[in-house]
Amino acid sequence: MSALKSIKSLVPLLDRVLVQRVKAEAKTASGIFLPETAVKELNEAQVLAVGPGAVDREGKRIVPGVKAGDKVLIPQYGGTPIKVAEEEFHLFRDSEILAKINE
Amino acid sequence: MSALKSIKSLVPLLDRVLVQRVKAEAKTASGIFLPETAVKELNEAQVLAVGPGAVDREGKRIVPGVKAGDKVLIPQYGGTPIKVAEEEFHLFRDSEILAKINE
Amino acid sequence: MSALKSIKSLVPLLDRVLVQRVKAEAKTASGIFLPETAVKELNEAQVLAVGPGAVDREGKRIVPGVKAGDKVLIPQYGGTPIKVAEEEFHLFRDSEILAKINE
Amino acid sequence: MSALKSIKSLVPLLDRVLVQRVKAEAKTASGIFLPETAVKELNEAQVLAVGPGAVDREGKRIVPGVKAGDKVLIPQYGGTPIKVAEEEFHLFRDSEILAKINE
Amino acid sequence: MSALKSIKSLVPLLDRVLVQRVKAEAKTASGIFLPETAVKELNEAQVLAVGPGAVDREGKRIVPGVKAGDKVLIPQYGGTPIKVAEEEFHLFRDSEILAKINE
Amino acid sequence: MSALKSIKSLVPLLDRVLVQRVKAEAKTASGIFLPETAVKELNEAQVLAVGPGAVDREGKRIVPGVKAGDKVLIPQYGGTPIKVAEEEFHLFRDSEILAKINE
Amino acid sequence: MSALKSIKSLVPLLDRVLVQRVKAEAKTASGIFLPETAVKELNEAQVLAVGPGAVDREGKRIVPGVKAGDKVLIPQYGGTPIKVAEEEFHLFRDSEILAKINE
Repeated sequence: MSALKSIKSLVPLLDRVLVQRVKAEAKTASGIFLPETAVKELNEAQVLAVGPGAVDREGKRIVPGVKAGDKVLIPQYGGTPIKVAEEEFHLFRDSEILAKINE
Repeated sequence: MSALKSIKSLVPLLDRVLVQRVKAEAKTASGIFLPETAVKELNEAQVLAVGPGAVDREGKRIVPGVKAGDKVLIPQYGGTPIKVAEEEFHLFRDSEILAKINE
Repeated sequence: MSALKSIKSLVPLLDRVLVQRVKAEAKTASGIFLPETAVKELNEAQVLAVGPGAVDREGKRIVPGVKAGDKVLIPQYGGTPIKVAEEEFHLFRDSEILAKINE
Repeated sequence: MSALKSIKSLVPLLDRVLVQRVKAEAKTASGIFLPETAVKELNEAQVLAVGPGAVDREGKRIVPGVKAGDKVLIPQYGGTPIKVAEEEFHLFRDSEILAKINE
Repeated sequence: MSALKSIKSLVPLLDRVLVQRVKAEAKTASGIFLPETAVKELNEAQVLAVGPGAVDREGKRIVPGVKAGDKVLIPQYGGTPIKVAEEEFHLFRDSEILAKINE
Repeated sequence: MSALKSIKSLVPLLDRVLVQRVKAEAKTASGIFLPETAVKELNEAQVLAVGPGAVDREGKRIVPGVKAGDKVLIPQYGGTPIKVAEEEFHLFRDSEILAKINE
Repeated sequence: MSALKSIKSLVPLLDRVLVQRVKAEAKTASGIFLPETAVKELNEAQVLAVGPGAVDREGKRIVPGVKAGDKVLIPQYGGTPIKVAEEEFHLFRDSEILAKINE
């Protein structure tokens, strides 16, 4: 039976970064809900958890460039999709994250 | 004749990790058993044994990130399947294990 | 909802360089506007922001060869396209930028 | 004319490991012999000889993880097949051997 | 609008070398001009500008093997074509230049 | 005109090993000659000459694992075929030689 | 206009080796000239010029294994063809030259 009850129990290994894509507005300005196919996926994501970093040749950890809570730009494709309780998440390598988004 | 009587006699080499996939519920909440094709495979697995780690360029072992007993998230595809006494197991490289699952 | 209101809030990671392609004249010399399909894309771009640089094997940052404000020559293809408020931008790795353009 | 009269005269080079696959039972429990096509190949093998190990960048030998006499788990495919006196053997690189089998 | 008015304002980055292919004679010995399709491209080129060199693992510049003014032999294919004011130029990596031509 | 009168004048460079495949018996035990197509090629070969070894990163030669006179096991495919005076020879890299054959 | 009047003005860069293939006899023993298609290309070549050598990671030149004047064995395919005054030459990397031919 699944041990993965909540996404919070997931601890990424090495340089993996757990993110959740920001959902595009599924409602028009006037409040009408759009059917799901009309909602374009954004490449913005929230960082939920970050691994300890990959290990370099001298055995030292390479500190990841992002941290939990960061808003980031992720590639359109790639990453490993994970589904927990009907919600979708992704694991990316730290070096695949394109940019941070300052607010 | 097969020397492999029990999965316990398998000792992974280098950075290989022996895991067994967690089985999805084959029974509905009301206790009805589902036919096997209706049971979706989960990407959660239990670590059974871990090799001593790969050797880096200076000849030192790279300590694996997981240990026997860990619950882990594994990739959907990949790994080397092993069958012992009708049960299926997989060998993954340590760096292929995606995340640990805390309980 | 999108956190990316302005391209200025984008902070490239590692050796990524955020550029905006220079727009070709959409007007003839005599002032007649050309339809968009007649406007050839140029491979000149303006650097908007530059990451801190990739990390080398000794853990030191490799200082990028371009900086914000530079006019540069970019490859015809490649890079990661980003759209913010109907404007298109690109992320390139520092080593993909072909040349600086002095004015 | 062939100089290879016996598999014992074969001395693997570098990190190569000479193995012979364990034969599956060609006889049912009640002693009936099965036709050869009904005998499934096992991925278990006996190590017959091991090379001195590959040479690392500093010119030192990397000691192989297995030794003659070991029972091992080998990949389903791969390795170099060798035939001596109608018997089949395989050469694998040391790092391709999946696991040791303890008895 | 294009900032690239003259090829002289182009400053190659890293180990890139800016060259212009030598034009084959478009005139026969008796002075008759050949149609452009009859003029075979030569693989000889003039070096116009050279980047500061690629950076090696210790962060030192690798001095390019050619310099502005050199006559060189370039590969038949490859390089990045650049067009400025209807003239064509190419960027090659320093290591792609095949040979110098002494005069 | 060919300078290569005899295979003995060939001096392999770097880690190349010059071998000649052992010919399978073209005669049955009772002395009947087999047509050439019935003679199966063996993967056994005699080492005729060995280069000085490849150069490692520190500029030192890596001593090849075989020497002239050795009987060796070579891969079924690969190597560079050379024909001298209607005889066929092969050049292999030292690391491609599978095993030595002791007599 | 071509600056390359003579093959002697060509100076190979890095580890490139300029060679000219040895021409097979175009005349039978009895002095009859063979049509050009009947002349089989040999893989023997004369070294005309050699670059200063590739640069290793510490910035030192790797001394090429052949020198001008050497007779060498070259691969059947590969290398960069160069035509000067209707004669064909080839550039190979030093490590592609298979063997020296002693006379």
